[in-house]
Amino acid sequence: MSEPLFEKIALIGIGLIGSSIAINIRERGLARHVAISTRSEATLKRAEELRLGTSYALDPAEAVRDADLVILSVPVGASGAVAKAIALALKPGAVVSDVGSVKGSVVAAMRPHLPDHVNFVPAHPIAGTEQSGPDAGFLELFENRWTILTPVESASEKAVADLAELWRACGARVETMTAEHHDLVLAIVSHVPHLIAYNIVGTAADLETVTQQEVIKFSASGFRDFTRIAASDPTMWRDIFLNNKDAVLEILGRFSEDLASLQRAIRWSDGDALFDLFTRTRAIRRSIVEAGQDTAEPNFGRRPPRKDPWNEPGE
Amino acid sequence: MSEPLFEKIALIGIGLIGSSIAINIRERGLARHVAISTRSEATLKRAEELRLGTSYALDPAEAVRDADLVILSVPVGASGAVAKAIALALKPGAVVSDVGSVKGSVVAAMRPHLPDHVNFVPAHPIAGTEQSGPDAGFLELFENRWTILTPVESASEKAVADLAELWRACGARVETMTAEHHDLVLAIVSHVPHLIAYNIVGTAADLETVTQQEVIKFSASGFRDFTRIAASDPTMWRDIFLNNKDAVLEILGRFSEDLASLQRAIRWSDGDALFDLFTRTRAIRRSIVEAGQDTAEPNFGRRPPRKDPWNEPGE
Repeated sequence: MSEPLFEKIALIGIGLIGSSIAINIRERGLARHVAISTRSEATLKRAEELRLGTSYALDPAEAVRDADLVILSVPVGASGAVAKAIALALKPGAVVSDVGSVKGSVVAAMRPHLPDHVNFVPAHPIAGTEQSGPDAGFLELFENRWTILTPVESASEKAVADLAELWRACGARVETMTAEHHDLVLAIVSHVPHLIAYNIVGTAADLETVTQQEVIKFSASGFRDFTRIAASDPTMWRDIFLNNKDAVLEILGRFSEDLASLQRAIRWSDGDALFDLFTRTRAIRRSIVEAGQDTAEPNFGRRPPRKDPWNEPGE
Repeated sequence: MSEPLFEKIALIGIGLIGSSIAINIRERGLARHVAISTRSEATLKRAEELRLGTSYALDPAEAVRDADLVILSVPVGASGAVAKAIALALKPGAVVSDVGSVKGSVVAAMRPHLPDHVNFVPAHPIAGTEQSGPDAGFLELFENRWTILTPVESASEKAVADLAELWRACGARVETMTAEHHDLVLAIVSHVPHLIAYNIVGTAADLETVTQQEVIKFSASGFRDFTRIAASDPTMWRDIFLNNKDAVLEILGRFSEDLASLQRAIRWSDGDALFDLFTRTRAIRRSIVEAGQDTAEPNFGRRPPRKDPWNEPGE
């Protein structure tokens, strides 16, 4: 192993993101020691079976001892409690980071517990799938995705640079901004889209005039894409909405206002208003593909699912 | 060629669906003659270059002459005018069908023009991508997807059976229901999901606090899936909303009611309500995958997009 980026990294929490970081560290030789800690004994055992680290502990304080970098990958609602639990064991000068999808409330929850001698650099890799747990991780998760850093002003430049280097080594692109701006950007590109996906799937499940069986059967045209998003981890997403309340409610207000106006255009048969919007949105999709943020293949290039046996043609 | 299903099929309109039908007919030998008609001279020429038929005509009446099956694949708002244009040229006993995403208004628009001696069997293949035009078609588009038939009561059983057979030959599964029920089912599984995707992409484009550049850059987490749906053909979708107004407004009312309640749960930090909904919606995703309506692969199995040159790490 050539000189690794960090001597020892502690990963607290080992779900989809934590295990993907662990696989990157292992495969790319980014640290000599990787200590893993997670609350559940079964998950910790599974992490060991998957060889995700070099040491394993239920107590996060034990894992962070001597670590040069500590990364929390826990639901954002748990960040404060973990910070408190590890505070006294942190090595002076260590970089403390996280991967939470909300930054303002994570900073507010963790900061009071952290000693002055550590460098607190909250981070958010904008990457994920609808799956969770230590088995869900994979090497390419961060490839060409953005990781946003929101360092607190007392963090050293070197700490920020080192953490950025780690994320680039995982394949990510790195951007720095304030926690507040991060939370607003994420509300529109992620949180509110998830909320309306959860909502439409819930609405469909509750209809009396169309059976749930029919919804599932004929889901191919639009709806099934929402169900993928609405299959994301419930605990993680509950915490996101509770912790990014202001930005989510602000964007949601805009969304509802726009939807009301669209509803009115339909009611009054204003075809031009609909056509204009649909043309504008098509151009945005083009920009996203051109920016390398999504595949240009139709239907995301997904292959037709296997033929299922319970519902053959003609039934 | 063994005995084909139909001697002559006329395809009026040759976009994504029309060209996919044409490719199926050609590759699977489902008709001896395929007459293609479309309004635009350039598109007709392109269809000929792609060898999608055996004859080509700008005048739809010329195309339908002697056809045993006529399929309209035009925006639903154009169905009535096309029916009027072909009415006098239709062969007695011919099956007349379409592929429109709305059925009630298509029946209302076409039926008054059609002579009593034809069999009118409206149809809707629930398949598509966000792309359009004669180059977008492909053989597997209907594979394992549902096609819904909504025959008018005067259509013969044989006509319905023959059309069902054609769709099965294209790989589809076939279901029959009333036009009214079709329109309600589609409003929830397709039309309203499209509308809210268009809406959120529009909302994002109009924010002042987050730049459009940022929206595009950080679109990876949820939002980009909506942009794919919101990139669908503007003319087609304008017509769908104008022609399925009642069902769309009804479902939209439900959606907004549910969203208001979700908004309230966030405002009052009702984590249990959020968690319960997110758990229910996750189960629905599982059912859709189990029903063979979507791939189980994370992120639809899409591959990471290529690295783009204009925005490298560190910029």
